[in-house]
Amino acid sequence: MIEVECHISIKKDGASFLNPLKTQLLEEIRKCGSLSSAAKNMEISYQHVWTMIDEMNRIAPSPLVIKQRGGANGGGTAISGYGERVLREYLIIQAEIKKVVAQINVEINL
Amino acid sequence: MIEVECHISIKKDGASFLNPLKTQLLEEIRKCGSLSSAAKNMEISYQHVWTMIDEMNRIAPSPLVIKQRGGANGGGTAISGYGERVLREYLIIQAEIKKVVAQINVEINL
Repeated sequence: MIEVECHISIKKDGASFLNPLKTQLLEEIRKCGSLSSAAKNMEISYQHVWTMIDEMNRIAPSPLVIKQRGGANGGGTAISGYGERVLREYLIIQAEIKKVVAQINVEINL
Repeated sequence: MIEVECHISIKKDGASFLNPLKTQLLEEIRKCGSLSSAAKNMEISYQHVWTMIDEMNRIAPSPLVIKQRGGANGGGTAISGYGERVLREYLIIQAEIKKVVAQINVEINL
């Protein structure tokens, strides 16, 4: 079976801002509220997680991932309002391109 | 400046068949009729060129790249009719997706 796939990335002033792995990381952080759990679920190192967060936070006009202090569990990590907006926008773009790719996959004949 | 980019790949029965580098290689072979010139122009090793051709030829119903024997220059390498068709199809798909991505890039606001 022939299948077209599309890997979507977003650059900001030429630097890598978002890609499928970073988007997955944002979704994992939102889900588990912890960087170490996100790293474990994604089977990547804590260092890799930090590098990706640092890249996104440095490039963005405001941080996408924030540390939360205090609370019953002694704080955690969360997605900021801006991070939520970026994630939402990426998922909309992904869905739009996936629709086009799905149509291409119906028509392709190689 | 925010810019969405799309890396298009085509899989056949789950295995990598075409991607931007392989497509560029097909275009280079068509242009110069020689694997070593293609490798040089793309700044990749001859071994890498061979691995890509082998992957494409093995997966395809008929070879995309063929050796030509004889002639004034002692033979060379060319794209087969099937290779031309695959390349044309990839470029059409790429243009279609690029059109969608260009529209997204006009509308994006992050």
